[in-house]
Amino acid sequence: MADYKAIGKAFLDFYYGRFDAGPRENVASLYEPVNGMMNFNSPDFAKGAQEIAEKLRSLTFQTIAHTISTMDIQPTYDNCILIIVTGALKADNDPPMQFTETFLLRFINNSWLIINNVFRLILHG
Amino acid sequence: MADYKAIGKAFLDFYYGRFDAGPRENVASLYEPVNGMMNFNSPDFAKGAQEIAEKLRSLTFQTIAHTISTMDIQPTYDNCILIIVTGALKADNDPPMQFTETFLLRFINNSWLIINNVFRLILHG
Repeated sequence: MADYKAIGKAFLDFYYGRFDAGPRENVASLYEPVNGMMNFNSPDFAKGAQEIAEKLRSLTFQTIAHTISTMDIQPTYDNCILIIVTGALKADNDPPMQFTETFLLRFINNSWLIINNVFRLILHG
Repeated sequence: MADYKAIGKAFLDFYYGRFDAGPRENVASLYEPVNGMMNFNSPDFAKGAQEIAEKLRSLTFQTIAHTISTMDIQPTYDNCILIIVTGALKADNDPPMQFTETFLLRFINNSWLIINNVFRLILHG
């Protein structure tokens, strides 16, 4: 899987481009429809594209812009791609906040789909 | 995999306990010996237990203490366990720094081993 870094980078461009352009729940189609999981700043996950879309719709901000600071991309034992992002986001008129986000992508039916995803805001101590 | 959260939590206790007690390169035995990967605050990975031990030995701090703020634990499609940590660490007499760390664990030969690991310091903008 020589081009896992290029795949990972293209995925991030597409995911955050679509998330920030809105409506953000459109990214739900990038998750494995039945078993894709998303933790959104919570230890509990939404499972499957429908629950994930509902969770994303329920978030209260109107506009959002993500800026990536670092991306680390690794191939896995099972030919998946693991991506870890750190960066900053700006939601509505709130001050910028730092975040980290992890994606595990799997090639299913000719597409790279998200099977695991965890988003966390970084709380400053 | 009903107890993936308990396994993940026990793993973190063991990993950071051993890392902080030192010598930190002792955690290298928790990685899959040949294919385990670690990115340590860099886009380039060390691969296999030996390279990982060398990388950890090369770090310049003498003492370190990790404090976990959040942990998110998900089972994966392939019966692995994905763990994302955010927290703070204190190295020597430096000011505390925030970090995020991701582990992908796989059950191999009766042990949960790390197959993928990414550590990142959070840089404050």
